[in-house]
Amino acid sequence: MQKYSEMTREQLLAEKAELTARYEAFKARGLKLDMSRGKPGADQMDLSRALFHQIDEDPESGEADFKNATGIDCRNYGGLDGLPELKKLFGDILGVAPEQMIVAGNSSLNLMFDTVAQGMYAGFSGCAPWLTQGKIKFICPTPGYDRHFAICEYFGIEMLPVDMTPAGPDMDAVEELVKDPLVKGMWLVPKYSNPQGVTCSEETVRRVAALRPAAKDFRVFWDNAYVVHHLEEPGDELLNIYEECRKNGNEDLVFQFMSTSKITFPGAGIAAEAASPANVAELKKRMSFQTIGPDKLNQLRHARMFRSVDDVKAHMHKHAEILRPKFRAVLERLEAELYGRGIAEWTCPKGGYFISLDVMDGCAKRVETLCRDAGMVLTTVGATYPYGRDPRDRNIRIAPTFPTVAEMELGAELLCIAVRLAALEKLLG
Amino acid sequence: MQKYSEMTREQLLAEKAELTARYEAFKARGLKLDMSRGKPGADQMDLSRALFHQIDEDPESGEADFKNATGIDCRNYGGLDGLPELKKLFGDILGVAPEQMIVAGNSSLNLMFDTVAQGMYAGFSGCAPWLTQGKIKFICPTPGYDRHFAICEYFGIEMLPVDMTPAGPDMDAVEELVKDPLVKGMWLVPKYSNPQGVTCSEETVRRVAALRPAAKDFRVFWDNAYVVHHLEEPGDELLNIYEECRKNGNEDLVFQFMSTSKITFPGAGIAAEAASPANVAELKKRMSFQTIGPDKLNQLRHARMFRSVDDVKAHMHKHAEILRPKFRAVLERLEAELYGRGIAEWTCPKGGYFISLDVMDGCAKRVETLCRDAGMVLTTVGATYPYGRDPRDRNIRIAPTFPTVAEMELGAELLCIAVRLAALEKLLG
Repeated sequence: MQKYSEMTREQLLAEKAELTARYEAFKARGLKLDMSRGKPGADQMDLSRALFHQIDEDPESGEADFKNATGIDCRNYGGLDGLPELKKLFGDILGVAPEQMIVAGNSSLNLMFDTVAQGMYAGFSGCAPWLTQGKIKFICPTPGYDRHFAICEYFGIEMLPVDMTPAGPDMDAVEELVKDPLVKGMWLVPKYSNPQGVTCSEETVRRVAALRPAAKDFRVFWDNAYVVHHLEEPGDELLNIYEECRKNGNEDLVFQFMSTSKITFPGAGIAAEAASPANVAELKKRMSFQTIGPDKLNQLRHARMFRSVDDVKAHMHKHAEILRPKFRAVLERLEAELYGRGIAEWTCPKGGYFISLDVMDGCAKRVETLCRDAGMVLTTVGATYPYGRDPRDRNIRIAPTFPTVAEMELGAELLCIAVRLAALEKLLG
Repeated sequence: MQKYSEMTREQLLAEKAELTARYEAFKARGLKLDMSRGKPGADQMDLSRALFHQIDEDPESGEADFKNATGIDCRNYGGLDGLPELKKLFGDILGVAPEQMIVAGNSSLNLMFDTVAQGMYAGFSGCAPWLTQGKIKFICPTPGYDRHFAICEYFGIEMLPVDMTPAGPDMDAVEELVKDPLVKGMWLVPKYSNPQGVTCSEETVRRVAALRPAAKDFRVFWDNAYVVHHLEEPGDELLNIYEECRKNGNEDLVFQFMSTSKITFPGAGIAAEAASPANVAELKKRMSFQTIGPDKLNQLRHARMFRSVDDVKAHMHKHAEILRPKFRAVLERLEAELYGRGIAEWTCPKGGYFISLDVMDGCAKRVETLCRDAGMVLTTVGATYPYGRDPRDRNIRIAPTFPTVAEMELGAELLCIAVRLAALEKLLG
C-alpha cells in the first residue's frame, strides 16, 4: 500500500477519480445509517427479556412476589440507597463494600450530574460550595465523553484538556494541574474509554490514587461505564482504584459510577455510585432531602436476574457475541482501505462501545459532511473534545453497536471512502 | 360534655385517675402502631397488581410488547420528557397542554428538589442564581409538609411561615411578603393539604395567580400531591391555577407537581412536573445535561393501565373505599372523646392522607411521648413547621392510611387518652 504523501499528483488525481465514483454510487443507494450514539441494538436488549418476568404472580395464591430476600415490600416508600442485594452485586463489581454503594434509578449520568451539582451548591469535605470559590476547573482527558464535558459547560466549569495516551490520561500533566487549588475534578472513563477504548494501566491507576491535589475538595469522577463490557477474551484488567486510594490514605478522592444501561436496558436499567464512607455520608445527606428512595421494583427485577457477578459475566458474553462481528466489520474495512496510506490511525479496543479514528488533521469535519450527504450520521465531530472543538479536527468516534452487521459493513466502507476523499482533497489543495 | 376549663380540681383529678387507668391498660397491651407517615397500606398497593402484567409476551410470537402507541422502543435511551401518552394523561389531570408536561421517574420530591436546586445554581428567567443573590426566602404555609421545609433547610433558604386558613394560605400575608425581592418562592399543597386537608378556595387560587412579586424569579411550588385523592364524593374542586395565571399574564409563576405514588406504587410510580412553555424550556435545558431520559418501561406500564382520566378516577374510588373506614375510625373516636371538652380541634378532610389535630398549646410533645411510651409512633411533633418548631406546640399530624382499621381504632383511642391526659396535666399544673 502506497502512502498518499508519496504519490505523484497524477496518482492522487486518479485515486480521487476512482473514489469519487465509488462515493457517488453510495450516494445513489439512498442509505440511512446512524453510527452516532453508543446505543445497544434491539438484539442486545432481547437478551434481557427475562427482566419482564421477574415479578410474577404465584399461580396458586395469585400473589405477586414483590418482596426482596430480606422481606422489603419493594412497592412502597423507603430504602434510600437501594436494595441490599444490588449493593452487594455492584460493590463486588466495583471492588468496594456494600455499605459504600448507592444504588439508584436508571441513569448514571443523573448520578454524575447530581454529584457535580452538589459540589457546586453544597461543596465537599466541609469546603465552601464550588459556586462560591471562583472559576473552578476540571481536568478532561481528551478525546472523551461528550456528556461529561457538557456537564462542565452547563455549570460554567472551565475544562482543562489532557491527552489520553494508550495507558490512560497523561499523568505528568494531571499531576501538574492538580497543584492549582481551583482544579476541583477530573473526568475519567478508566476502562474501554469513550471513544478510544483505552484501559488505564496499573501505573496510571496507582498515580491517580496517589494524587495530592491542592484542593481538599478535588474529586475524580471515575465513570466505569464499561466495567464488564468486554468484546474479546480475556478482556482488559483494571486495578481496583478504591484499594489503591486506601493505600495512600486517599479514600475520599474518587466517586465511582456504573450502570446496567448496556447490560440490560439503556432506558430502564439500574445506576449506581460508589465512594468512601465519608463521601457516601455526604451524598446520602443530600439524597435524604432529594428523594424518599429509588424504584425498588426495577431493582428487584435486576437482583433476581443477576444473583452474582458470574451471572453478569455470562450475560455479557452474549452481548460480546452480538457486538464482536460489528466491531470486526469496521476494523477489517479500516485495515483494508486505510492501512499503510498514512492518512489515518485507529484503535482496536477489547471492549466498550466505540472505535476511535483519527484522520488527517483538518479533515474530520469534511469526513462527517461527506458521510452525512451520503446518508450516514456520525457522532458530531468535535463532540469528543471540551466545548465541542477538536483542536486538530481529526477525531471521529465510531459507534458500531446499533446498526446490523450488514449495515456496519456498508457504513464502514462509506466511512473509508470519505476518509480517503477528504485526505485527497487536502493533499490536492 | 363538660369543658375541662369549667371543671373543678376534684373533677379534673377524678378524670385523670380514670384516664391514667385506661392509659396503663393500653401500655400493658404492648401495641406496635405507626401513624407517622403517609404511606399507603398493602391493600391499597394490591389495587395496582395489574401493573405487573402490562408488558407481557405474545404467547404466539414470544415477543414482549415494549413499544408504546407511537412505536417507541421503551427499553432504549431517549425521550427526555417522557412518553406522549403520559404527558397527555397528566396534562389532562393538571389542566395543561401535553407539551407543558415533563414526565419523569418515581419521585415528585426529586423533581421539586431538582427544581429548587436549579434556582440555586442556575436561576430562573435570566436572573442570577439564587445562591449568589444573598439570603433568599420562601413562604411556607403552616402547618405544612415537612419535606418541603427540609429542602429549604438543606439549601439554607430562610422560611417565612404564614398561616393556613380553611381557604388556603393567608393571602394578605403572602401578598405583603412577595414585595421583598429576596422572597423567591412559596410552597403550597393546594388540594387536601398536608396535614390539614385544606383545599384552596377559588378566591385563594385567583389571588395566587394574580401575585405581582418583586422578584421576577419568584415561583410557586404547587405540589398537587392529592389532586385525585378524594375520600368522599363529591370531593373538593380546585380551580385550574395555570388558566388563572394566564388570565393575569403570569404563566411563569407556577411549577406544578404530581405523582402516582399514592395512585399505584409509592416507590415505583411516575412523577410529573407541569409549567409554562418558558419554564418547561428552562427545566428541559437542565435535564438535557442531567439525563438521557426516564425509565420509559415503567411509564409504559402506567400508560397502559390508565388510558384516560376516567380510568384514574375509577381506580381512586377503590383507594377511597379502603381509606374511608380508617379516616372515619379516627374521626369518630376524636368526636366521642374530645368533642366539647375545649381541649382540641381537628379537620375532617374530604381527601388526602392526613387528619390534623390541634391540642392545647404546649401539649403536643407530651402527647407524642405518651403515645410512644404506649407503643404508637406519631409524626414527629413540630415536623409540620419550618425548622421542626411548632411555636405553640399544639399540632399533631395523624396518618391513618398504613395501619388496618382495627389498628386505627385502637390507635385513635390511645391518642385521645393521651390528648386528654396531657391537657389534664397542664390544667392541674
